[in-house]
Amino acid sequence: MVWELQLDIDATGREPVYGRIARAVAADIARGRLRPGERLPGTRRLAESLGVHRNTVLSAFRELDAEGWVEAREGSGTYVAEDMPLRPAVPFAAKTTGDRSPAPGFAMEMPPPARLLSLAAAGRPSEFVLAGGLPDLRLLPAELLARAYRRGVRRAGRRLLAYGDPRGEPRLREALARMLSATRGLAVDPEDVIVTRGSQMGMFLASRLLIRPGDRVAVEGFGYEPAWATLRAAGAELVPIPVDTDGIDVAAVRAAADEAPLRAVYLTPHHQYPTTAVLSASRRVALLELAATRRIAVLEDDYDNEFHYEGRPILPLASADPGGVVVYLGTFSKVLAPGLRLGWLVARPDVVEGVARLRAIVDRQGDRAVEHAVAELLEDGEVVRHVRRMRRTYQRRRDALSDALEDAFGDRLSFDRPRGGMNLWARAHDVDVDRWRDRCEAAGVRFATGGTFAFDRRPVPFVRLGFAPHDPAELRAAVARMRRALPRS
Amino acid sequence: MVWELQLDIDATGREPVYGRIARAVAADIARGRLRPGERLPGTRRLAESLGVHRNTVLSAFRELDAEGWVEAREGSGTYVAEDMPLRPAVPFAAKTTGDRSPAPGFAMEMPPPARLLSLAAAGRPSEFVLAGGLPDLRLLPAELLARAYRRGVRRAGRRLLAYGDPRGEPRLREALARMLSATRGLAVDPEDVIVTRGSQMGMFLASRLLIRPGDRVAVEGFGYEPAWATLRAAGAELVPIPVDTDGIDVAAVRAAADEAPLRAVYLTPHHQYPTTAVLSASRRVALLELAATRRIAVLEDDYDNEFHYEGRPILPLASADPGGVVVYLGTFSKVLAPGLRLGWLVARPDVVEGVARLRAIVDRQGDRAVEHAVAELLEDGEVVRHVRRMRRTYQRRRDALSDALEDAFGDRLSFDRPRGGMNLWARAHDVDVDRWRDRCEAAGVRFATGGTFAFDRRPVPFVRLGFAPHDPAELRAAVARMRRALPRS
Repeated sequence: MVWELQLDIDATGREPVYGRIARAVAADIARGRLRPGERLPGTRRLAESLGVHRNTVLSAFRELDAEGWVEAREGSGTYVAEDMPLRPAVPFAAKTTGDRSPAPGFAMEMPPPARLLSLAAAGRPSEFVLAGGLPDLRLLPAELLARAYRRGVRRAGRRLLAYGDPRGEPRLREALARMLSATRGLAVDPEDVIVTRGSQMGMFLASRLLIRPGDRVAVEGFGYEPAWATLRAAGAELVPIPVDTDGIDVAAVRAAADEAPLRAVYLTPHHQYPTTAVLSASRRVALLELAATRRIAVLEDDYDNEFHYEGRPILPLASADPGGVVVYLGTFSKVLAPGLRLGWLVARPDVVEGVARLRAIVDRQGDRAVEHAVAELLEDGEVVRHVRRMRRTYQRRRDALSDALEDAFGDRLSFDRPRGGMNLWARAHDVDVDRWRDRCEAAGVRFATGGTFAFDRRPVPFVRLGFAPHDPAELRAAVARMRRALPRS
Repeated sequence: MVWELQLDIDATGREPVYGRIARAVAADIARGRLRPGERLPGTRRLAESLGVHRNTVLSAFRELDAEGWVEAREGSGTYVAEDMPLRPAVPFAAKTTGDRSPAPGFAMEMPPPARLLSLAAAGRPSEFVLAGGLPDLRLLPAELLARAYRRGVRRAGRRLLAYGDPRGEPRLREALARMLSATRGLAVDPEDVIVTRGSQMGMFLASRLLIRPGDRVAVEGFGYEPAWATLRAAGAELVPIPVDTDGIDVAAVRAAADEAPLRAVYLTPHHQYPTTAVLSASRRVALLELAATRRIAVLEDDYDNEFHYEGRPILPLASADPGGVVVYLGTFSKVLAPGLRLGWLVARPDVVEGVARLRAIVDRQGDRAVEHAVAELLEDGEVVRHVRRMRRTYQRRRDALSDALEDAFGDRLSFDRPRGGMNLWARAHDVDVDRWRDRCEAAGVRFATGGTFAFDRRPVPFVRLGFAPHDPAELRAAVARMRRALPRS
């Protein structure tokens, strides 16, 4: 049987033609259509049959030779290699990692599937995504970012593409320290700041460092499930604490600590996730006092500090922490974009040192070129400008959504306009919210209901509506659909 | 006392002037130089004293107002805010995370400082770095990469900067699967591939998934310390196995497994780290058989597969793994650049699933824009072209270094030209290699001695010399200095 190369040269594809020929031949060798020692057709004949220049085939053969698939024998032609050093025990074409291989034998402690993929990313795309806490990426100065990246790689690529400091690019740590001093009341040096891959990695590293299997950790009874999953992966036993319109109930935290020692408390004090409640001043003081006295680590997730609309911006717990108990976590996911995977962790020096050592084991270091680019945007004031723009924009959107909801639902939906953040938390009256959510989903509007965030997963008559990624007209259109999708009660 | 703003407007800095004014004022409030309720000077006066336009000062005050540092009172001027919602308990200027805070109280399991920072990055910069396994970043097509990044962000920024798949950008997984099929004999689908932050994260995830505290893991007696640190962090008890010119001693692995069960073996079979030995074909077969029979996970670190100069390229163990025991780790750190933090892990589907779940907890997902850019370079054949160029380049450098060493040291240094990789492993005769290394370091030539890589840290009369990052003339100059620095024996 004469071998013939099956290859559609005209198929679109950006790989050069010689490379596609080489790959097709290699695939045939792998598949066994061409056998060791078999002679390949002459380059001229193959070129003709494929309708390409002979040089193209010659290049393909050189490539195959360099990769060891074939060998050219002086004056006699090109042959499929006989002596690949390790002849695979299974045919190439069979999946070597197939499902039919026996059980691993080594037990795996398979972690539960984290519901980490944001609600926004799950399922079919929706026309209106009022879930997931996404910023409006249409308004991101992406071109500035891309240019800064390119500039950095072009000018300092040799440095930025090499190994570096696991704690982050020095220039970004410095810019972050300045930003945190100026906007968060945190008097920190660059040495107190560690750059992480989003606040998720900050949570992971802090959990690994501070939590031992069996440690009790207090969390908000309505809260952020990925953080819970991270704490659980470190072995924590979670203790849910009620939240109300003043945030986490600190008296209940104290009661839990009285029952048995707490190793840590994880919370979102600024705009509580998901209820958007701001932790009251008296609870702040009480929590810090409790934590300092009992030596409880406070994992403060300040994920959307920048977006506060009413009254003064609230300073984080970390700004008033003489006891050194707070591990402060922040992120650029809301300010800039989640895909950048850039966040930071601020803590006392011994915690920072431990986190840095762990970080070196996890992935050695961050992406210096991306960190450098964002440092430039910070230095140039671009981030501050963007935040200021987005604050105004999101405040208008909050009002547009609030107005539309009031018009459409009146007493059926009660809520306070959130003082900050990117979401609105509303109580529905005489509505099966989960049924409503499903009907809305079918109508192209995605949002999450209260039970999604409940520690015990029990349904509650609340919905959470994100207003950040849509403009007022879009929000009004989404609310109109929600109105039509309201189940009869 | 009249407050006066200390600010050198002429100082260089790319932040706009109004921003710098605002920051200086905020700093003075934080420091207590300006007290709550105090009236700020008029904008006109301040503008005059600073020598800037009054609008600039007005912008600065608006910024300070928005951030809550000051408040404008209609018709009366601007005052330092009275009512910051949470007055910090410590003065701002004091470091809130200072060293004087009491011990954390919560015990930290402080990991040992990993010697992960590459030798190339440690200490003062050296003129000639023959340590660290760095590629020559001067020859990287950095501009192509930077352009691909910018193009991706510009065209698809909304998608690439959003949340995504923890297993990696689909386009990169597809390109990697094709690359691994074409060049490594791995018949894998994109679903079998997970994108990691360099092979370090692959090691971390695989260790966390497969190793339980107390598990015995066999490692090469001369080997890669960061991988050991990663295994130890997962609780592994490491069992060092001798290596020789045929790679790891598989009979000794079997003996170790006879003594007590082994959970895994970690090795660098292609060009053994640090000795550059290629694992012999018979040992490969024996190791895979042993692992399949005893259900030992094989962590195969194929960190420099691309650079093989003599004979046929060696296929990885993963290409002949019907038992599904191999977890295959690769990286672009040598092929492209370590700073990209891009690698991959290939394994049986249940392992891939577990790794993906862990990865979502560690940092949620990779940097999609960077992954997308590298996928484009792969699709366009740029990576293959670069590898081909670098293979020729590194082979010439290997020969240049070998020739220079033979000329300079004759019988004092014995070595085989490495069949692949970026380093040369040489035995020194009648030389105190550690003293020699220190004298070379002082003379501007950095390299590592054998003891650095020894499991027991005991000195051995070997040196490891990396030839990749320097051209032949530089290598000759480095060898000349090494000659002069040779201690008299």
